[in-house]
Amino acid sequence: MRFFFYPTSVAVFGSFKKGAIAYEILKNIVDGGFEGQIIPVNPKGGEIEVAGISFKVAKKLEKNVDVAIIAIPARFVPSLIEEIGDKIKGAVVISAGFSEIGNFALEKELVEKARKKGVKIIGPNCAGIFGVHANFFGSFEVRVKKGGLALISQSGAFGGAALAMGDEEGIGFSAFVSYGNAADLTESDFLEYFADDKNTKVIALYIEGVKDGKKFIKALRYATSKKPVIILKAGKSKSGSKAAQSHTGSLAGSYEIYKAAFQQFGAIEVEEMEELFDAAKVFEMYEKGGKKVAIITNSGGPGVLATDKVERLGLKIAKLTDNTINELREFLPPQCSLKNPIDLIADADYERYKRTIEVVCKDENVDALLVICVPPIFISSEEIAKAIIDAKCNKPIIVNFMAGELVREGIKVLEECGIKNFPTPERAAKALHWLNLRKDFNE
Amino acid sequence: MRFFFYPTSVAVFGSFKKGAIAYEILKNIVDGGFEGQIIPVNPKGGEIEVAGISFKVAKKLEKNVDVAIIAIPARFVPSLIEEIGDKIKGAVVISAGFSEIGNFALEKELVEKARKKGVKIIGPNCAGIFGVHANFFGSFEVRVKKGGLALISQSGAFGGAALAMGDEEGIGFSAFVSYGNAADLTESDFLEYFADDKNTKVIALYIEGVKDGKKFIKALRYATSKKPVIILKAGKSKSGSKAAQSHTGSLAGSYEIYKAAFQQFGAIEVEEMEELFDAAKVFEMYEKGGKKVAIITNSGGPGVLATDKVERLGLKIAKLTDNTINELREFLPPQCSLKNPIDLIADADYERYKRTIEVVCKDENVDALLVICVPPIFISSEEIAKAIIDAKCNKPIIVNFMAGELVREGIKVLEECGIKNFPTPERAAKALHWLNLRKDFNE
Repeated sequence: MRFFFYPTSVAVFGSFKKGAIAYEILKNIVDGGFEGQIIPVNPKGGEIEVAGISFKVAKKLEKNVDVAIIAIPARFVPSLIEEIGDKIKGAVVISAGFSEIGNFALEKELVEKARKKGVKIIGPNCAGIFGVHANFFGSFEVRVKKGGLALISQSGAFGGAALAMGDEEGIGFSAFVSYGNAADLTESDFLEYFADDKNTKVIALYIEGVKDGKKFIKALRYATSKKPVIILKAGKSKSGSKAAQSHTGSLAGSYEIYKAAFQQFGAIEVEEMEELFDAAKVFEMYEKGGKKVAIITNSGGPGVLATDKVERLGLKIAKLTDNTINELREFLPPQCSLKNPIDLIADADYERYKRTIEVVCKDENVDALLVICVPPIFISSEEIAKAIIDAKCNKPIIVNFMAGELVREGIKVLEECGIKNFPTPERAAKALHWLNLRKDFNE
Repeated sequence: MRFFFYPTSVAVFGSFKKGAIAYEILKNIVDGGFEGQIIPVNPKGGEIEVAGISFKVAKKLEKNVDVAIIAIPARFVPSLIEEIGDKIKGAVVISAGFSEIGNFALEKELVEKARKKGVKIIGPNCAGIFGVHANFFGSFEVRVKKGGLALISQSGAFGGAALAMGDEEGIGFSAFVSYGNAADLTESDFLEYFADDKNTKVIALYIEGVKDGKKFIKALRYATSKKPVIILKAGKSKSGSKAAQSHTGSLAGSYEIYKAAFQQFGAIEVEEMEELFDAAKVFEMYEKGGKKVAIITNSGGPGVLATDKVERLGLKIAKLTDNTINELREFLPPQCSLKNPIDLIADADYERYKRTIEVVCKDENVDALLVICVPPIFISSEEIAKAIIDAKCNKPIIVNFMAGELVREGIKVLEECGIKNFPTPERAAKALHWLNLRKDFNE
């Protein structure tokens, strides 16, 4: 399946009028810097200009390509697949108008023709795919930064929104796949594939339902044995399950069965979209964590909020060793609280943060650090960001710089070094919770 | 207490070197457009320029003013209060170095001297106050937009971060008070005051602990009888309670007692900082809601997520009447799902949203609407925003425009009309939950 996400050549089928879906996908591929061959195909032929580059529109596909992206009326898709099947390895069928509106026969025909030719199908009725590390943006959705998250979404619109919002949250992506009706390839195939993709550090899955429960369980077991898998299952409630059925035609099934499977294999189930982002962020940085947390802050209140959330989530506020406390006492001002949470107080600077992180990190009672910074008084937030970056520490550090615009520069400096920010103490604490869930599974 | 938040004159005591706290507060008052008299006071006298305006620094306070803001070393504060007590109604003591570091005697002296003169004290060890509708920004914290939220915070840093983040979330503020050590005025006094402040629609309270439980209960009962009160109680867990004690010296007390009181009086208790923002946003718009929710969306997935969350929170997915369904069928395309959640599908435009909202709003089975918009395909998000604004509907409408930058313009249009956006379906659903809690209390 690698050819889908690291293609060397791609053909796009559809209308190349500005605003048309095939045009928008072609433009995204060109704008995204794809270096392989790009062939627009439309029976009318002609020439088009995209992002300053002229393309001859082929009337038919003459050359072999890895991937065909198809955005033509549904009824023509099966015969197109039959026609070009020998020249392509796989097709992404964007076109809607198949089983989701009751056209089961057309979808069956599509799959049969594809399988006869040995062609793999993603879709139909999908938003396309990204292979971010190949600069391949085979979708009309917004392009995103390179990174470690492979996002697999049954809902195209959810996927599109998650790409845009995740990118703003500082998430880097390895790949995106909207698999629509899952007529051929399903969530299970993608789970197994990304489990072995070297650029993917963490997999996130939005599902309403699965077609083949056994296959899904097998794929989930395999993927979770390789890397963290985050799942947002929609259609959990009674009305939600009905809504899912009318949306993707999924029989959402009993949520209890899903939940048991997620727990058995140590998948990280999240409850909300925002949690999916936060979990993805933490697993882009770290593989696992531990229960005992040290909190370092320059402000008491946020430290208390983090403490509450850490305990509520079943983690522990680490009991620092006497050694650690003595070492901290040597250089911290007497007003600082040395009990965990450690309050470095409002005038904490680069040195105070850096040395404290290093001393606490060595403490055998500490598994992970949660470092909070409200806008410092006399220095810029960048100084604190640099302290976190420079501190020698081999344990997970989760960062909560808070107050939006006032710490924007610090967050930027952190992000440039791959350290992602969690905007509230509670979201930072939850990130540690998910890290810890992953650990439990591996033990 | 009104003079604190609607002063006609203010004196600021401290150092007016750039970067010094008194200077920053003075600058904030001037920049904020305060139209009353402003008198900087420092025994050294001299002249200073702030935001292009020259001020003579008084060596002593000669005139009467409503409020003194004091940022001088702690040990000099009681005698200053004695000296100026006859000329001021109240003082905001920013200075730290009182009970929070064990100087109980100094704090006692401050209060005694103030009470002898009939002067009300906010603080000491606090971040100051805002009276936003009087353009009075008597704090070094970031200035915010005018609106309906009065934020009362025991922690100055929490308050400062919440102002900055809340402003970015689109919250409007009526007032802010950081009350620090609460030596004289406490959270209970502010609760009672803002309950009657005409510019305050909703009160949010960050507390770690209270000094006088009976007084707090009385104030909470009164305030909740007048308007929604949102509470973020920190120090709930065992470690959190200890941390609170070393932070504000608060005996956090048994959380169970607090919780019972919050529930008894219908206060809206939130668990996280972000929830405090969301609850504030919804109560700035609406006074109360109801259990039966109609969801209108242009994308299935987010509709399913909203549905799950609505049911999980104990709200109901409204069963639309046959009348409503028939009316919708008249103008909606056949592919649209007319069961709640109502899916207007991806090409939904101004008319489709507006008419649907109006039809659904009339349905007697519907108490509130949750309207979702992912980036529309052929039109701008502003069009959908306008449809929501123009739709005639007398029930609460909670809006979730999602995908960050892609819907920014639509969110801006909404905010200009006082409609606040909730960035995920789940956060929108929670907003409805809080609205409904308030209703239960009033019934």
